[in-house]
Amino acid sequence: MNAKKTVERQTGVALWRQIADLIRLSISNGDYDQTGMVPPETVLAGQFGVNRHTVRSALAALADEGLVQAIQGRGTLIQRKERLSFPISRRTRFSQGLSDQARDIEARLLSHETVPAAGEVATGLKIAPGTACIRMELVSSADGRPVSCSTSYFPTDRFADMATQFERLGSITKAFAAQGLADYVRVSTELVARHADSAELALLRLSPGAIVIEATAINADPDGVPVQFARSRFAADRVKLKIET
Amino acid sequence: MNAKKTVERQTGVALWRQIADLIRLSISNGDYDQTGMVPPETVLAGQFGVNRHTVRSALAALADEGLVQAIQGRGTLIQRKERLSFPISRRTRFSQGLSDQARDIEARLLSHETVPAAGEVATGLKIAPGTACIRMELVSSADGRPVSCSTSYFPTDRFADMATQFERLGSITKAFAAQGLADYVRVSTELVARHADSAELALLRLSPGAIVIEATAINADPDGVPVQFARSRFAADRVKLKIET
Repeated sequence: MNAKKTVERQTGVALWRQIADLIRLSISNGDYDQTGMVPPETVLAGQFGVNRHTVRSALAALADEGLVQAIQGRGTLIQRKERLSFPISRRTRFSQGLSDQARDIEARLLSHETVPAAGEVATGLKIAPGTACIRMELVSSADGRPVSCSTSYFPTDRFADMATQFERLGSITKAFAAQGLADYVRVSTELVARHADSAELALLRLSPGAIVIEATAINADPDGVPVQFARSRFAADRVKLKIET
Repeated sequence: MNAKKTVERQTGVALWRQIADLIRLSISNGDYDQTGMVPPETVLAGQFGVNRHTVRSALAALADEGLVQAIQGRGTLIQRKERLSFPISRRTRFSQGLSDQARDIEARLLSHETVPAAGEVATGLKIAPGTACIRMELVSSADGRPVSCSTSYFPTDRFADMATQFERLGSITKAFAAQGLADYVRVSTELVARHADSAELALLRLSPGAIVIEATAINADPDGVPVQFARSRFAADRVKLKIET
């Protein structure tokens, strides 16, 4: 809609980040479909009125998102035209719908511990403050690139083996099933967008100034009893969320 | 979850913006509920290890979001604890659910013109490229503060009076009804987050470096025929989106 190739030098957003946004838009619009390549750095530099160093930083960011790949001596190849698309619906599971977009989907457990539920976690899970929960920190990746990190809480009385089962099975859906919960649904999701904090920059391998979409979600069993409170932070440059209402 | 009161000086996000994020979190956590006031500037400056000028910029940003109000000689009063919450569901209408969060909800028509449908607009509306559409640019505000701007497309053959009816009635739902469409549903919504461009900074009265959540949505009549393609950009600091699946 706003495909004008202009950059503003004083908006508080790094120039290379603005150029990356414009190139990403051109890729997704199909402007480069004929060649399957991004135009040469010198051409882009002229087009945007910036130096080659800035263009190179922009292309490095797009390579980091998995959209393009620099091939020695050939130029910059388009790998994928779009951000990864995450469906959000009553049936939402992390890997759902991603299998045709990435070869390798992985969720890795960084840490787990038992903590007393407090504040919105207790409210969300409909349990008394202080009730024991298992807190799990995960990072999820597609083709080796982190796309989200999350903090999840599960009531210990019902899912005492959550961390062990997750480590064995590599999936929350499977870990639930191993503990007798064959099915669950998403009952609520709230979204905000903000700049990543320093922990998120490191976990998601983002550059300073990057944006995260923070999704706070509750999953419940078929009787409506909450089974998981999850706060996921998606690397905004790498994903779009597809809401299925 | 990450309520540590630390700021990193080199993450590429302005210090005042990071301080604003931390104060916003404290407000929504209820840390200041006893007084209903944000602590004095000198206290906040000491707490975050920054100077008063930085704290003042952060408080000005929060005032701009409508969360706080500076009262001469008294300090900074908390006006609202949360971002405005926008429901996204099959029944989504702009003003829906906002009435208990803001006194004055307004959608203003900035411009309208007839254009040929192209690319994703034609695809989304399921019409042939080149088919005439009415494009409308709107800005929506709550209590005088812009919360979103949007670009909408309506097929001209069916809704030739869209702009006139909108100007008369002040609502898309009512303008549809005046043209014989009593009901419609949201069939798809896609979300991304990115930095605002210069046009959005001006329309939404945002400061440089601010984030927008861009929602691309299709509305359809009860028979599933698309009636509206809309691209809305929400000021991320001012809203959260509540997904009802």
